[in-house]
Amino acid sequence: MITLASDFGSPYPAAMKGVLLSRTDAQLVDIAHDLPRQDPRAGAFWLRETIPYFPPAVHLAVVDPGVGTDRRAIALGVGDHVLVGPDNGLLWPVARRIAEQSDPSIAAFEITVDDPASTTFHGRDVFAPAAAAIHEQGVDRIDTVDLLSPIALDSCVDLRFPEPTRDDEAIHGEVLVVDDFGNVITNVPGEFLEDDLPEPAADATVNGVSAPVVDTFDRVDAGGRLLTVGSHGYVECDVNEGRGDEAFGLGVGDAVDLVVDDSA
Amino acid sequence: MITLASDFGSPYPAAMKGVLLSRTDAQLVDIAHDLPRQDPRAGAFWLRETIPYFPPAVHLAVVDPGVGTDRRAIALGVGDHVLVGPDNGLLWPVARRIAEQSDPSIAAFEITVDDPASTTFHGRDVFAPAAAAIHEQGVDRIDTVDLLSPIALDSCVDLRFPEPTRDDEAIHGEVLVVDDFGNVITNVPGEFLEDDLPEPAADATVNGVSAPVVDTFDRVDAGGRLLTVGSHGYVECDVNEGRGDEAFGLGVGDAVDLVVDDSA
Amino acid sequence: MITLASDFGSPYPAAMKGVLLSRTDAQLVDIAHDLPRQDPRAGAFWLRETIPYFPPAVHLAVVDPGVGTDRRAIALGVGDHVLVGPDNGLLWPVARRIAEQSDPSIAAFEITVDDPASTTFHGRDVFAPAAAAIHEQGVDRIDTVDLLSPIALDSCVDLRFPEPTRDDEAIHGEVLVVDDFGNVITNVPGEFLEDDLPEPAADATVNGVSAPVVDTFDRVDAGGRLLTVGSHGYVECDVNEGRGDEAFGLGVGDAVDLVVDDSA
Repeated sequence: MITLASDFGSPYPAAMKGVLLSRTDAQLVDIAHDLPRQDPRAGAFWLRETIPYFPPAVHLAVVDPGVGTDRRAIALGVGDHVLVGPDNGLLWPVARRIAEQSDPSIAAFEITVDDPASTTFHGRDVFAPAAAAIHEQGVDRIDTVDLLSPIALDSCVDLRFPEPTRDDEAIHGEVLVVDDFGNVITNVPGEFLEDDLPEPAADATVNGVSAPVVDTFDRVDAGGRLLTVGSHGYVECDVNEGRGDEAFGLGVGDAVDLVVDDSA
Repeated sequence: MITLASDFGSPYPAAMKGVLLSRTDAQLVDIAHDLPRQDPRAGAFWLRETIPYFPPAVHLAVVDPGVGTDRRAIALGVGDHVLVGPDNGLLWPVARRIAEQSDPSIAAFEITVDDPASTTFHGRDVFAPAAAAIHEQGVDRIDTVDLLSPIALDSCVDLRFPEPTRDDEAIHGEVLVVDDFGNVITNVPGEFLEDDLPEPAADATVNGVSAPVVDTFDRVDAGGRLLTVGSHGYVECDVNEGRGDEAFGLGVGDAVDLVVDDSA
Repeated sequence: MITLASDFGSPYPAAMKGVLLSRTDAQLVDIAHDLPRQDPRAGAFWLRETIPYFPPAVHLAVVDPGVGTDRRAIALGVGDHVLVGPDNGLLWPVARRIAEQSDPSIAAFEITVDDPASTTFHGRDVFAPAAAAIHEQGVDRIDTVDLLSPIALDSCVDLRFPEPTRDDEAIHGEVLVVDDFGNVITNVPGEFLEDDLPEPAADATVNGVSAPVVDTFDRVDAGGRLLTVGSHGYVECDVNEGRGDEAFGLGVGDAVDLVVDDSA
């Protein structure tokens, strides 16, 4: 199995699929091709929230503002999974998540494709051939793939999501991504909020905007703001049958100051 | 085979696919993941217009404004198909369509997944595990799947499309859905219009807006309004190489009064 | 293997997939279903840039403003590939590309499906049944498929991309397509530009708008205009981390006059 994820939109992923299917019989599964454009951090978030649900596979992922520069192409072997993509941090949050859940050792390799046909479409000309070669060799024999050379883990570009902080005033976090529904996903783990909540659950304010803390959208009227611990385990700023980003005035990277109303 | 349909956009369906592929080798086929958001009636229309073309399969469908509330999760067995989704009516129009075409008996089951990981993403945590379990057991042995308990058909939430009426003045219908092309699909069966049409075909008015009744878009100039019996068998208000919703000023749920001009 | 491409958006392709999977076990691969709407020339471009990467397959492609008129439905056999779609030129650029790369002979067939269920959805009612029948018979036995009758190549509607010209003043080209990134892809082959370029590479102007000629986006600052030879081999008018169509004021079909600045 080979999964594909990119910010390529359409129809560029089809050229990658053609290259893969010309070289392997692998089952192809699309993760998404509308990852936030040119934003490796947001892409890294979505890879981490989707790929760990898959069985062992080669995962080809490309969000690559530096295509054509001297940024390396890499493959990370972790557990029975191999992640293939640019060396810009995109692959690390999911690699660490898989390592936590299964085998803690991660092996890193540089991919070398001599003279790719293009300087702007390495998804087709570098990453797809490498993913196909790894799949054909078998993920447990990644160290024998011709295109790959071992590199030191700490030579790779890392990417970590910012950690929230807490003081007497508030929990200080940041918006990681906004999903297709307009749900605003922060970097504040659900436990931060739950630790502060009185029983019964109260309201909280985000940057001064108040909303009830609930466990399902349906607890507020249609169009109403709410705060909840979403399916990723983070505090989200949402609207029932509406868009949280608009109602809270929040976008990717914005700071969020979260205060639980304990006067209830 | 397992088909997937939802209003999840991207990349949430990938998590469902990962769960399915971790539990089964089924071929996965996407119906659509941009079903009209939070609109079970429109979703029910599209499921009915696509799923019956498929060979026997498990069909996972989620348009679920009530996720996390006490609405049930259900599975409907009909012919060699099983439909899996929320108990909000979404699955019934397609179930009845399949029943009309093949085996008229429908069996209903409640799905019980103890302690799903999230209260907001049952596609991943409830429906996908259930669809995988049904697929692995085999659709003809659905009554032996652990997660399922038989329930009475009439205990399920039903959903029926409104029926048009006809009087001396007009055919009175409603807009069911607007498709990606902007084609306005009403609930008026083609025969209603055809019964009223003189030979040769004349014009008709929709809410006072006149357009020729034709069998193909090409019968009018580019940009011109037309009325036709579309591929779903219903009267549509369309524009050749343009958007019918804009030209007729119609949206989902709007009333349409259709009058054939028999003065021709 | 059967690939699918169309301008149908969603969820109409699902009905085609159902028809195909009811008649064949073929692996289905989506090329794209958001090809530029009702624009066979743009569709022909994208088919040519994606399908040749695939292994031998049946390729179902529908961009079909003339659906329901007397335009024919055709199949083209070339090498080990078969292309299925409307006779409006859509299939010819990719057929010629495959012929150049492998077997130069092309065989053309008319598809006849008696009484298709709809006059507006031949993807479901004509092209999908034909593609399935061809796949089941085998692409090397296409001449024995019941639905097909041989026709003369020169009876087919052809479609050729406009050729750029060059005079003392400028290279005179045209915008072929704008991709999802907003990259403006012209019909000017990369060699045209490269022939004129001094060493080191200079700036050039497009319709009077100046930009550096570079090999990767990263050579200019974020938001900066650039000219490059893209992954299709044509000159593109792009912006690093931005939209070239907006920055250059160019859309599909617009003339581009390209002048290399040789004063450097």
